[in-house]
Amino acid sequence: MTAVSCVFCSGERPAADHKVMDLGATTAYVHDDQFFTGWTVLVLKRHATELFELAPDERALMMDDVARVAAGLHALYRPRKINYECLGNQVPHVHWHIVPRLADDPAPRDAVWTVAHTPRPLAGPALTERVAMLRSRFGG
Amino acid sequence: MTAVSCVFCSGERPAADHKVMDLGATTAYVHDDQFFTGWTVLVLKRHATELFELAPDERALMMDDVARVAAGLHALYRPRKINYECLGNQVPHVHWHIVPRLADDPAPRDAVWTVAHTPRPLAGPALTERVAMLRSRFGG
Repeated sequence: MTAVSCVFCSGERPAADHKVMDLGATTAYVHDDQFFTGWTVLVLKRHATELFELAPDERALMMDDVARVAAGLHALYRPRKINYECLGNQVPHVHWHIVPRLADDPAPRDAVWTVAHTPRPLAGPALTERVAMLRSRFGG
Repeated sequence: MTAVSCVFCSGERPAADHKVMDLGATTAYVHDDQFFTGWTVLVLKRHATELFELAPDERALMMDDVARVAAGLHALYRPRKINYECLGNQVPHVHWHIVPRLADDPAPRDAVWTVAHTPRPLAGPALTERVAMLRSRFGG
């Protein structure tokens, strides 16, 4: 897959109204499904598909973003644990799922992908509020 | 959970015979279930549970290990994609699942955790061979 046909490079996804902010190497978005409250997606600003394609300095900068977002989510939600996942099975462009696993998590020992649930999308004021809240926590 | 009660810190797990090698910040092991061929686990050498607990230099060193292992797996197996996951839902001590998704993967668009399968443990010569093969690829 080239950058030309990449839905992240084209701007088709993630949805612009889910954008939280630009970070150093990545852009942060509220994940479409907020069943796991606070689930944030970080998209690398340039097209790459594997972590070894990045120069060490670039990779370190990206991981500083990941850690900054995780620290913000931790301060906000006090999760039991945070999950960090860079998969790319559907969209290979490097991106991170950063998922706080809160105290009321229905399956705290399992990966989120195995947890059957009704998706919880946000829209309107609820989305605006979540975006603003996360921006205030990631911006410091 | 303190380091004292941590199964990674105590040496209870991963099994010693699954150890591939020490890297800079982590130790590499063959994952118990090799249904996804090449699945490697990297365990941080010290006890920490979230990525923001690590100093930036330590985090960068850890991610250099992750990238080195991924590059080795890529050279060996030519996977369609590699998955990188730091979850900690069952053992919070920071560790990475690095999973090459090969051409014959039964569910290439899905996370490994959702793929029903009979576990494929290795033992005896098959384990020794896998360990040696990975060591030769990660050591360069």
